[in-house]
Amino acid sequence: MNVLGYAAHSSTTDLEAFRFERRDPRANDVTIDILYCGVCHSDVHNARNDWGGAAYPMVPGHEIIGRVSAIGADVTRFKVGDPVGVGCMVDSCQSCFACDDGDEQYCQHGSTYTYNSVDRHDGMPTFGGYSERIVVSDRFVLKLPEGMDLAGAAPLLCAGITTWSPLRHWKVDSSSRVAVVGLGGLGHMGLKLAKALGAHVTLFTRSPGKEQDARRLGADDIVLSTDDAQMAAAAGKFDLIIDTVPYVHGLNPYLPTLAVNGTLVLVGYLGGLEPALQTVPMIMGRKSVAGSLIGGIAETQEMLDFCGEHGITADIEVIDMAAINDAYERMLKSDVKYRFVIDMATLKA
Amino acid sequence: MNVLGYAAHSSTTDLEAFRFERRDPRANDVTIDILYCGVCHSDVHNARNDWGGAAYPMVPGHEIIGRVSAIGADVTRFKVGDPVGVGCMVDSCQSCFACDDGDEQYCQHGSTYTYNSVDRHDGMPTFGGYSERIVVSDRFVLKLPEGMDLAGAAPLLCAGITTWSPLRHWKVDSSSRVAVVGLGGLGHMGLKLAKALGAHVTLFTRSPGKEQDARRLGADDIVLSTDDAQMAAAAGKFDLIIDTVPYVHGLNPYLPTLAVNGTLVLVGYLGGLEPALQTVPMIMGRKSVAGSLIGGIAETQEMLDFCGEHGITADIEVIDMAAINDAYERMLKSDVKYRFVIDMATLKA
Ligand SMILES: [Zn+2]
Ligand SMILES: [Zn+2]
Ligand SMILES: [Zn+2]
Ligand SMILES: [Zn+2]
Repeated sequence: MNVLGYAAHSSTTDLEAFRFERRDPRANDVTIDILYCGVCHSDVHNARNDWGGAAYPMVPGHEIIGRVSAIGADVTRFKVGDPVGVGCMVDSCQSCFACDDGDEQYCQHGSTYTYNSVDRHDGMPTFGGYSERIVVSDRFVLKLPEGMDLAGAAPLLCAGITTWSPLRHWKVDSSSRVAVVGLGGLGHMGLKLAKALGAHVTLFTRSPGKEQDARRLGADDIVLSTDDAQMAAAAGKFDLIIDTVPYVHGLNPYLPTLAVNGTLVLVGYLGGLEPALQTVPMIMGRKSVAGSLIGGIAETQEMLDFCGEHGITADIEVIDMAAINDAYERMLKSDVKYRFVIDMATLKA
Repeated sequence: MNVLGYAAHSSTTDLEAFRFERRDPRANDVTIDILYCGVCHSDVHNARNDWGGAAYPMVPGHEIIGRVSAIGADVTRFKVGDPVGVGCMVDSCQSCFACDDGDEQYCQHGSTYTYNSVDRHDGMPTFGGYSERIVVSDRFVLKLPEGMDLAGAAPLLCAGITTWSPLRHWKVDSSSRVAVVGLGGLGHMGLKLAKALGAHVTLFTRSPGKEQDARRLGADDIVLSTDDAQMAAAAGKFDLIIDTVPYVHGLNPYLPTLAVNGTLVLVGYLGGLEPALQTVPMIMGRKSVAGSLIGGIAETQEMLDFCGEHGITADIEVIDMAAINDAYERMLKSDVKYRFVIDMATLKA
């Protein structure tokens, strides 16, 4: 199956149009005509090999929305025409304890990622959603709730599930006090989802100008993390802090704002915690610092269904495929509210 | 009430005999003739003002075992002659959510510590267990199970509860894999308690010579943390790691040995985590680094009862009161298996 997409050919060159082959669908495969694909921070980091491990040509994209155009002989859950989504994973071992628990993102044999990964059956590279069509094992295809806006749904597949999973794992409900650090693609989904779960929601931000938007997105309170008095007033408050900041930043100012037994969970930053994390605030209140990676497939379906019930999609700016390189630059400057989504109809233009 | 004890008069002088006044017992007070007092690492750190906040004269000691010698008019749970224990706390606000949850150690208004603290009713300094007698509010007095060795019971009041509390909070049972880092006073209790809870127990140590002792204390496995091959073989194994090491040490070698959803809990080290904690292993397996402080009063009673049922006490070396300054030096060199306990009968000698 010959497919048109957009690819990076090296860590230093712009993405450009690229034709490549996708596998012939297997009996359990779903073939999807892609309508929209969200643009995630990890797309630019992978395309530029910021984390190492990049294989080129690379077709990024793991916030994929489309319609089923064909199904394999063994596929029963989907039919042609269904609106569906594909997130960061397209396969996993399906037999380790993590997969058994529905935590395919922690598969002990390594999940197969949607792009820049290798298919575990045929050994061929995987290519992502910046393309007209994708072929995915039915277990990793998500159903979209009826009537959901298709473009706004795309970021749910990564930004949405990345914030949903910790909210659920740490059992957030209407009795919870949740804070979100950072108001970007992840952060704005964190506010919406935590609010819809009934929690009292606070945004930590360094930018005074974000208050109005934050309240619209679900924040009950805004705490300027640069204001010592506001930070002191938030002491002992939060059961869960979801830290979405993708660059190195000190966590010590946030630990005192955790309640006893509270957890600060990192979902955006890969690297060393500097300055050194101080243990006294952790010990004096049984507080935790944790990490969390996207979410499992059943959990992603749960999140999509929840978003359908609560009328939640992402706040997006729809772009043409050809604007992707500019979009990367703007995203790195946080100049997007709050996620770029590529209209894949523009790919052939 | 005039009492003989042993006190530090400054951060740089030896402890020596010291007479001081204890309060007249209140209606809810229990007066205890002290038989044994364990020697905790925090005793030497407090006596030498290593953590700041030292008030002199200071009578250390918070692993206290004795017999009730008098009770106040309102005391119903104890009678004269009962063997009892007192740990790190002698009071708390009794009205905050932490106290309501039985987590008096995290009292939002500050627990009253057994020594180097201030009584919340009369504003007088508290003096610890290196003394012949103590007066404690009945809520903070623990019952000793019948037949328990009194000297060996003393370290349960701090070293015991400090390792018990995380074992219980993180729900360790016979399906759990637990590791303990460090084989000192805390570590040896961690091995015994985790084993008695039915867990598979591993000791991480830097010293090859500890294998035989560790196995006797409950370790199923010993992993030399200096041996990269042994560390690699332990990858993904532990649901809970209790890190008892009291000095700065890198946690990054241990994180990969946590299972998905695993927690490394620090119970001994106060300070900054250096070298910088790396987030990738945390994010890739939803792993946590947490802190935990001693344990609540009901939880301490639960631990004592459990130890009674399972025949658990600490491995101790009984010393005379006059040997305390030498004991501090030996303890700082880890030259004790595994806890010094002062025979308080030697105080008057
Ligand atoms: Zn993503
Ligand atoms: Zn798996
Ligand atoms: Zn202690
Ligand atoms: Zn309290």
